[in-house]
Amino acid sequence: MGAAAGAVAAVSDSRDFYCEEVLSGRTPVDVVAESERALAFRHTQPAFPVHIVVISRRHLPEMTELEDWGMLDDLIRLVREVAIGVARDRGGCRIVVNVGSYQRSGHLHWHVIAGEKGEEIGPSLR
Amino acid sequence: MGAAAGAVAAVSDSRDFYCEEVLSGRTPVDVVAESERALAFRHTQPAFPVHIVVISRRHLPEMTELEDWGMLDDLIRLVREVAIGVARDRGGCRIVVNVGSYQRSGHLHWHVIAGEKGEEIGPSLR
Repeated sequence: MGAAAGAVAAVSDSRDFYCEEVLSGRTPVDVVAESERALAFRHTQPAFPVHIVVISRRHLPEMTELEDWGMLDDLIRLVREVAIGVARDRGGCRIVVNVGSYQRSGHLHWHVIAGEKGEEIGPSLR
Repeated sequence: MGAAAGAVAAVSDSRDFYCEEVLSGRTPVDVVAESERALAFRHTQPAFPVHIVVISRRHLPEMTELEDWGMLDDLIRLVREVAIGVARDRGGCRIVVNVGSYQRSGHLHWHVIAGEKGEEIGPSLR
């Protein structure tokens, strides 16, 4: 990684809500599932009736940047576990992850959403 | 798996556009990336300026049902590769996968979307 990658990391770190607030414990969250390397919790400002966020316990900036595949693999296993639970309760759910400029926080986070508002955002995607 | 699982498989197969049309070659698609076990192509009825679908070459009904983790792992590696390409071109993109009743076809498919309409469907998810 050169200077450019370093600069991106610096920008990401300065707006990393998940590391700074959630993983530090500064903002308490309602944990719904966890594994050795990943954490799933209810969104602090949910946009849908069910809105769960799944993150890696170690800093992982985003989908395009990975130190090793195992980190993403662990994260996705927990995402799937959460999705199975939500689908069992509500019939179905949607998994969403934003990449690059579509991601607001500087820490990779996967959304598991379900419910009325979720249905409005993308019926064409069903 | 018992009779119930067999019944579900039968229902899924009867509405499996991806196996019946795409993987069979009956409906030609614009392939954008592929691997040994997965295929990425432009959606035949795109809902967004960039709308790519990524599927497993072998039948994989949905996220909650997996024969082995390797199939999903391969699929996600291709989803990530496609997302990196789209993000390089357009700055960012969104990866979406529907689970359970949120999935319309009986074959697991991941969406990689970008562009104006994509931005409308979930700004709150950024």
